[in-house]
Amino acid sequence: MNNFNPQRICFMFAMHAEAAPLIEKYSLEEVADFFAPLPPKLFKGSHNGKEIFAVLNGQQNGLDLVGCEPATLTTQLVISKINPDLIVNAGTCGAFKANGSEIGDVYLSKAPINFHDRRVGDSGGWYEMGVGFYPCIDATEIAKDLGFKTGHCTTGSSLDMADEDLALIKKNGGELKDMEAAAIAWVASLYNTPLMCVKSVTDLCDGGRATEEEFHENLSLASNNVKDACIKIMDYFLK
Amino acid sequence: MNNFNPQRICFMFAMHAEAAPLIEKYSLEEVADFFAPLPPKLFKGSHNGKEIFAVLNGQQNGLDLVGCEPATLTTQLVISKINPDLIVNAGTCGAFKANGSEIGDVYLSKAPINFHDRRVGDSGGWYEMGVGFYPCIDATEIAKDLGFKTGHCTTGSSLDMADEDLALIKKNGGELKDMEAAAIAWVASLYNTPLMCVKSVTDLCDGGRATEEEFHENLSLASNNVKDACIKIMDYFLK
Repeated sequence: MNNFNPQRICFMFAMHAEAAPLIEKYSLEEVADFFAPLPPKLFKGSHNGKEIFAVLNGQQNGLDLVGCEPATLTTQLVISKINPDLIVNAGTCGAFKANGSEIGDVYLSKAPINFHDRRVGDSGGWYEMGVGFYPCIDATEIAKDLGFKTGHCTTGSSLDMADEDLALIKKNGGELKDMEAAAIAWVASLYNTPLMCVKSVTDLCDGGRATEEEFHENLSLASNNVKDACIKIMDYFLK
Repeated sequence: MNNFNPQRICFMFAMHAEAAPLIEKYSLEEVADFFAPLPPKLFKGSHNGKEIFAVLNGQQNGLDLVGCEPATLTTQLVISKINPDLIVNAGTCGAFKANGSEIGDVYLSKAPINFHDRRVGDSGGWYEMGVGFYPCIDATEIAKDLGFKTGHCTTGSSLDMADEDLALIKKNGGELKDMEAAAIAWVASLYNTPLMCVKSVTDLCDGGRATEEEFHENLSLASNNVKDACIKIMDYFLK
């Protein structure tokens, strides 16, 4: 990591609320229709000689496109049309009180990044195909230098968890439950594009509260923490 | 539909075993590295003046890439690089004995095409966002003329069903359980590319047998039925 000096950094967000603080901070400007007719949105700018991109999945029917299919589509477009040196999947996540997580905590991802809702078989490599086990960059040193925690991202297409999802999360040591990281990690791995995930905790999956309610209550706090973390990461790579 | 006369027809498959009979029938030739470095594979040829494309999701670690993320990626590539007049998602599916389905039955899709494992909220449009409700072409007349059944495709990322999946399948009238149709339908809808799904039944979700075993036992029969159906569909559009 000491020699890693990305010049074109692309922050990928699922929700506008998660992206807005960073777009404002760096005065990123929207490049209209860059991905048309597809829904993703591109914002770009520069900071101390580095190019900064913020890409959102976009909206349909007035709602942010969350989940794995939009994340897959956006990542393929980002890499083929922008070709960043580094993708930073920035956003919010659920986490587990049992792991010591608290609302607002900021985490960088540890490898591997997994799915927890793709059950396609137990033998012949199908289990591994479903779960994924995708790489991300080793952020141990960055996290230590910047004062963030590190954790394993585990991705599914639902805000809640079926029993089957929780079983796979436990089996694979999932700590940060989100809805995009593994899809982004899969596409990034196909192109060998370096990926880091920075996630702030909006809800505790084992905290006894309704996920949707807790998520909306803490979205603003967590998004602001993600923005601060992204700025620290940008500054880290300027050294 | 009477005036619909597609000239560039792209058959999309998840598994090589599902595609092989059609590739052989029309002597389709592989276009090497067409999607490189990404895993999808393109085969092309022509039949009575129409261009035929067969696209597979490709493989990793020697296994066919099944599921919604590969289907999303492949559909975006197919439309942006081939721009077909019609996508036919051809493959196999699970179905329900309770609906009168039998192993080997051939179905064309009815709209809407849904997801059954994306639970992102119950209000404010989030339920609809998760489930999807994507369009496909009205195949009522084709099915009647060719002797196929019609049914609602419902898509998830797992071979089995969590209780939560079955609840959404029942709620939305899902009849043909597969792992790609809704992802393909979402991307196709973004481009307004016409889509038809042709599916043959490998397993009965309510038949009391293990899905994986029944699936592998009937894959060859169902793939052959899909091939015969695709040929009938091609001939239908030649009229």
